[in-house]
Amino acid sequence: MALKSFIEVSPDSHFPIQNLPFGIFKPEPASPPRPGVAIGDYVLDLSTISVSGIFDGPFLSGSDCFLQLLCDVADEATLRDNPSLREKSLVPMSKVEMLLPIAIGDYTDFFSSMHHARNCGIMFRGPENAINPNWFQLPIAYHGRSSSIVVSGTKIIRPRGQGHPSGNSPPYFGPSRKLDFELEMAAVVGPGNELGKPVDVNEAGDHIFGLVLMNDWSARDIQAWEYVPLGPFLGKSFGKDGNLFHVLNALWLIWGTTISPWIVTLDALEPFACNSPKQDPQPLPYLAEKISKNYDISLEVQIKPAGQEDSCVVTSSNFNHLYWTVTQQLAHHTINGCNLRPGDLLGTGTISGPEPESYGCLLELTWNGQKSLSLKGATRRFLEDGDEVIISGCSKVFSLFTFLKHFPKHIFTSSHKE
Amino acid sequence: MALKSFIEVSPDSHFPIQNLPFGIFKPEPASPPRPGVAIGDYVLDLSTISVSGIFDGPFLSGSDCFLQLLCDVADEATLRDNPSLREKSLVPMSKVEMLLPIAIGDYTDFFSSMHHARNCGIMFRGPENAINPNWFQLPIAYHGRSSSIVVSGTKIIRPRGQGHPSGNSPPYFGPSRKLDFELEMAAVVGPGNELGKPVDVNEAGDHIFGLVLMNDWSARDIQAWEYVPLGPFLGKSFGKDGNLFHVLNALWLIWGTTISPWIVTLDALEPFACNSPKQDPQPLPYLAEKISKNYDISLEVQIKPAGQEDSCVVTSSNFNHLYWTVTQQLAHHTINGCNLRPGDLLGTGTISGPEPESYGCLLELTWNGQKSLSLKGATRRFLEDGDEVIISGCSKVFSLFTFLKHFPKHIFTSSHKE
Ligand SMILES: [Ca+2]
Ligand SMILES: [Ca+2]
Ligand SMILES: [Mg+2]
Ligand SMILES: [Mg+2]
Ligand code: NI
Repeated sequence: MALKSFIEVSPDSHFPIQNLPFGIFKPEPASPPRPGVAIGDYVLDLSTISVSGIFDGPFLSGSDCFLQLLCDVADEATLRDNPSLREKSLVPMSKVEMLLPIAIGDYTDFFSSMHHARNCGIMFRGPENAINPNWFQLPIAYHGRSSSIVVSGTKIIRPRGQGHPSGNSPPYFGPSRKLDFELEMAAVVGPGNELGKPVDVNEAGDHIFGLVLMNDWSARDIQAWEYVPLGPFLGKSFGKDGNLFHVLNALWLIWGTTISPWIVTLDALEPFACNSPKQDPQPLPYLAEKISKNYDISLEVQIKPAGQEDSCVVTSSNFNHLYWTVTQQLAHHTINGCNLRPGDLLGTGTISGPEPESYGCLLELTWNGQKSLSLKGATRRFLEDGDEVIISGCSKVFSLFTFLKHFPKHIFTSSHKE
Repeated sequence: MALKSFIEVSPDSHFPIQNLPFGIFKPEPASPPRPGVAIGDYVLDLSTISVSGIFDGPFLSGSDCFLQLLCDVADEATLRDNPSLREKSLVPMSKVEMLLPIAIGDYTDFFSSMHHARNCGIMFRGPENAINPNWFQLPIAYHGRSSSIVVSGTKIIRPRGQGHPSGNSPPYFGPSRKLDFELEMAAVVGPGNELGKPVDVNEAGDHIFGLVLMNDWSARDIQAWEYVPLGPFLGKSFGKDGNLFHVLNALWLIWGTTISPWIVTLDALEPFACNSPKQDPQPLPYLAEKISKNYDISLEVQIKPAGQEDSCVVTSSNFNHLYWTVTQQLAHHTINGCNLRPGDLLGTGTISGPEPESYGCLLELTWNGQKSLSLKGATRRFLEDGDEVIISGCSKVFSLFTFLKHFPKHIFTSSHKE
């Protein structure tokens, strides 16, 4: 809280003093990228205060940066009493360009919302065997593509590919006809582990630096045709080209996988920790946690249909709908000896809640296009060219944060307007 | 052929002058890693001759190195007539340590041998629907884990994980009981492509630097239980620890995925190019090649059972059994706009031939452990602790290479003894 006294933070800011998320930014288009933390309407340039000697870092290429305590970030008095340092190091957020905050070595996507797994199972296999028996025994996941992960705000191209033919007809080829978003969050790995040395589930939290919002763009027709028997491939790793016709204008996202520019640390989320769902059957010992935590983070997706002024909320979910915790995911990922490296990204999978209004993707919301969503005049079964998708996350402020007067407080944002 | 006149290369060397593969090595344990090419029993240190000004490179972090022509590597006379430069730049291969030759951003594994796909299909789904209809329309693939790819010679740990229970019994947990190898090769991406700009199938060869041998270690019991519906995960990305009990001593590899230290360029393979199999149904236009090439590369796997002196050949296959070519694989990978980066690795999938003696993994050779292999006294259904797995590849020399007198010539090696 060292900075509270001299940097004014409006009570409805997404970045109160309790949430100082890390990101990478350029203050000017020609500047080299540098790390920063968001404070109110400013970005504190860590490279500048590092040069001044009051910040012992950053070490973004190794894992050290991930262990920096926020209270080490700056010495309040030094920054407050040095107008020229303040001028240089506090950059108005409206002026900066945010970049992908991490170099992602490997990206893994889990499948940890039971409601999402059940809905997909009912749609594709029927209600009897909606959820495979392995799902309740381990956090199912697949390896994803890291090269196509981009930062929020990137425009994308509608991917081309083969679509699922009906019956015995040959596959068609062309732009995807079933472009979807997936509402996810993702854990950013801090300290890694060596090959062959699994991480204990009760220590897994120490290996997570923080969380980002994630949109796992999905081409449902490409995915449906390609994924048997080895899982999703090109339905999840697509690209853009400003010269092609099928350009989506999206604030959040696009191509392959999009993440938010600010990483919120697990420390900052601690006040919003809550119990995770009871797991039945009991997990095997390597997945059994002494303390099993979820986080109460309200998640919302809005679509701004092409050509319309206003966006519409299409789903309202919550991070706490996850059945498998992020620490169980991380421990499971390493149980075979697999090594994680700093900056690796572990997606939660689509976070759907139990009610239809809380489903985390259009596949579920429109039941694979069988019904349409009404968006203030427009209707949608899947995304159309020019649509924007806006994901936001926020946590209720508990009494711990008395100065915030129990108002709802946004802790993540991606061009989220209020 | 510039170096032929003064560096003696034995006629049975794996590295004749026509095959100058690239690798990364350390001449001494404390030396920094550097690039080199193999010539006979020597490694030519490209960093040393680069300093001398007769090699215009290397640029290993970008894609430029991948376009270096071998004839640019050195000026013969300069090297021949400078004993001190020769002394410094030609290092006996027996003394060097080979490292992973590339920084692998993303790793993809294809599934392009029809015989392998059919055998797996018969085993797990029965003979009626052994091969899914999508298999003949596109090169099926899945994203893999890059962090756990290691260089030939690395020892591994038997991975732990959940095994497939029978009937309704709960899953078991422990060291994998069905550890397998997979005989594969992999293409190393040279120049990448931008997000949203697919590579034309007829230009895909320009994006491939060369090929390596690959062992895609697989834990069949972990894989069988976890892979529905999102594909292989922990069955393919495991690790090692010298302190654990279950250590495999393997020349070739281990954990997750192992590749050979030398990358053989597509140029060097050109004399061994052959027609690829006729494809029926005809591929869609984006996969239709004007010239569709395979390469005639004999592939062999030997197992040296723990405690035995001798290794036994367990399978003899050939790269030309691939149904989908590496250029079709690369073009398909980018058709959705996915970006490839220099150093990305595209595995072919297990390369099985039509005859039982040419199956590319123990799963097929022992029909999922139903029969055992006899290895000069030892028997094996799957790999046991202490086993070594040795993969080698070689190409017959055609008349083009008259000085080699039509002897068979090994073009790849991994500690292969004759
Ligand atoms: Ca997903
Ligand atoms: Ca494989
Ligand atoms: Mg995903
Ligand atoms: Mg593989
Ligand atoms: Ni040999």
